[in-house]
Amino acid sequence: MTMEIAGAGALLTILRDGRARTRAELMELTGLARSTVSQRLDALLDQQWIIPADDAISSGGRPAAAFTFNAGARVVLAADLGATHARLAVTDLTTQVLAEHSEDVAIADGPERVLDWLVTAFHRLLAESGHTLDQVCGTGIGLPGPVEHETGRPVNPPIMPGWDGFDVPARLGPRLGVPILVDNDVNIMALGEHWAASPEVEHLIFVKVGTGIGSGIITEHRLHRGAQGAAGDIGHICVPSAAHVVCRCGNTGCLEAIAGGGALAAQLDVANGREVVRLVRAGDARAIQLIRQAGRDLGDVLASLVNFFNPGVIIIGGDMADAGEHLLAGVREVVYRRSLPLATQHLNIRSRQLGDRAGVIGASVLMIEHILSPGTVDLSVASG
Amino acid sequence: MTMEIAGAGALLTILRDGRARTRAELMELTGLARSTVSQRLDALLDQQWIIPADDAISSGGRPAAAFTFNAGARVVLAADLGATHARLAVTDLTTQVLAEHSEDVAIADGPERVLDWLVTAFHRLLAESGHTLDQVCGTGIGLPGPVEHETGRPVNPPIMPGWDGFDVPARLGPRLGVPILVDNDVNIMALGEHWAASPEVEHLIFVKVGTGIGSGIITEHRLHRGAQGAAGDIGHICVPSAAHVVCRCGNTGCLEAIAGGGALAAQLDVANGREVVRLVRAGDARAIQLIRQAGRDLGDVLASLVNFFNPGVIIIGGDMADAGEHLLAGVREVVYRRSLPLATQHLNIRSRQLGDRAGVIGASVLMIEHILSPGTVDLSVASG
Repeated sequence: MTMEIAGAGALLTILRDGRARTRAELMELTGLARSTVSQRLDALLDQQWIIPADDAISSGGRPAAAFTFNAGARVVLAADLGATHARLAVTDLTTQVLAEHSEDVAIADGPERVLDWLVTAFHRLLAESGHTLDQVCGTGIGLPGPVEHETGRPVNPPIMPGWDGFDVPARLGPRLGVPILVDNDVNIMALGEHWAASPEVEHLIFVKVGTGIGSGIITEHRLHRGAQGAAGDIGHICVPSAAHVVCRCGNTGCLEAIAGGGALAAQLDVANGREVVRLVRAGDARAIQLIRQAGRDLGDVLASLVNFFNPGVIIIGGDMADAGEHLLAGVREVVYRRSLPLATQHLNIRSRQLGDRAGVIGASVLMIEHILSPGTVDLSVASG
Repeated sequence: MTMEIAGAGALLTILRDGRARTRAELMELTGLARSTVSQRLDALLDQQWIIPADDAISSGGRPAAAFTFNAGARVVLAADLGATHARLAVTDLTTQVLAEHSEDVAIADGPERVLDWLVTAFHRLLAESGHTLDQVCGTGIGLPGPVEHETGRPVNPPIMPGWDGFDVPARLGPRLGVPILVDNDVNIMALGEHWAASPEVEHLIFVKVGTGIGSGIITEHRLHRGAQGAAGDIGHICVPSAAHVVCRCGNTGCLEAIAGGGALAAQLDVANGREVVRLVRAGDARAIQLIRQAGRDLGDVLASLVNFFNPGVIIIGGDMADAGEHLLAGVREVVYRRSLPLATQHLNIRSRQLGDRAGVIGASVLMIEHILSPGTVDLSVASG
């Protein structure tokens, strides 16, 4: 039974690129017997994961029936929950957004209140998009703290009181009736940007510069979460120019204590990072000077990581990325000066392309990759 | 034809764990048809990649024939070429060393002389081990500089005059008649230590502290080479305490310019890193103080990398590792103070376990992983 399911997954993995293929092509590509391929195609057709292609392929004799992936077969519920703001989406199986919603929600209200709100909001959004719960194949969720991805539980999240160890899938699963995957918000943003804007890049670092600073790492096209799921936490790397500053983590000299949106806002006597961005855009010389220096400090850290990790692309995202070229210029200045020439030869350092949507797109990617990976397609669940 | 070969690889990938399995078990594990499994088993038996298992498995009826991996089916030639010293080995398909040789060879003599010597030395060692060239399935080679792994060509190697862009496989291939894989020496050491001493660890950083400093990165049990094959070059990461020192790379403040064996030797007025280790072991207080500080400087860099990469294990290797606990103590002191608690909670920082053999074992692993991976088993080559 397990092999049956895995085999169907292998066919879907091939077909999901959108190209139509005949039975014979699928036999050749998988090495599976004709009877096995037929059996699995029937199951996939039955549940509408695939549909007959209009353009049957002719190879001399009578035209052979061809099959193609049905991106509308199921929908995905995606959520990007930040410290004070939530963004939700319903997407198809190519991450195309069918409906979306965005609202101020305080993560500090605790898991019960926030997740109850989430279930209600998902139901409303699903109805808006014209879909029903039995068309949903899964839910991807990003949270603003470290998450043990295998269990979906936050691990000592510093800005999420009440969430430590909370079993998010156990709370949501019974009320949505679909698989739930949870990850760190910066990880899902990295997934979203990689999927939508740089799918050809094997190794990538996505940096979120918001109130704090964090990063998401893609290697061989997949998220690198590390041994404890803590990978990417670059906000607490020590930078020499911050040696005198005490960070909220209890250490001194952390990158985010000097270059995060919160640190810059404090220096400019404004409320938050968004106000800093507003000043920069208004041409305030002191704000521009500070954001450029923040770019250099970030560049100091990234220069080391470029030597170590040798990424093909670095993407600067988060609210502070809206400050534009000033931040990016500081980063580039230091990375190109400090990193090894071989590692920077083809390195591309750029701003995010998806804007605020990176998180929900990434949460959708998280679930789609899971659902369509060869080992995990579960036809019995998918049949609703 | 390609699928035939890939299918045989899938069987080998399953059988290489050493457990015997029946035809029925292999059908179940691969999802392949009985006729396909039989055909591929015949090909593998014919070429002795597998052998009938003594302990045929009985499941009620008559005992079913079982098959097991033949670790002695082929041998691997492995070489770890350092700046001034070369180490060679003939291994079986479980990396067990069947014969080895070690000799002073200057990499600066250039590729023609060094590789000609290598061919002669391999032939001699192979004869010593009682094998012939048609039993060799491939050659793995480590070189002391950046290597473009796909082509086996060194890329701007700083201490290898004449080697830049040299086509190593093209020189060796025709004279050995087997596939040649080339990689950076620190990468193969990381592979060797991972394979032999920490095979269960998913994410690992191996640090070579010799004259210079470099690292090899394992993620999801595989080498991370990065976008240009330059990953792991941590010797040129900037450390605050080295800001005044000019490095051979042309930058200032590089880690290896202050903590490498060459830098320590210069401060102690001795010839090289090995002399430094000798002084440390003899109890020289100044040498001990210096090596401990070198550990702290290395720890400064590793603390950042732990936050970023979240490895399960850090292994300290290279000649300077022979200085023992003093170096390690300095590293641990800073990493456990500076890195995030979540990332260091289960982090193991230890000395190398394979000693000088890590390189040749890793070069052998490099080739075995290639030969036995599902997509690349090439029965036509393997048949000799």
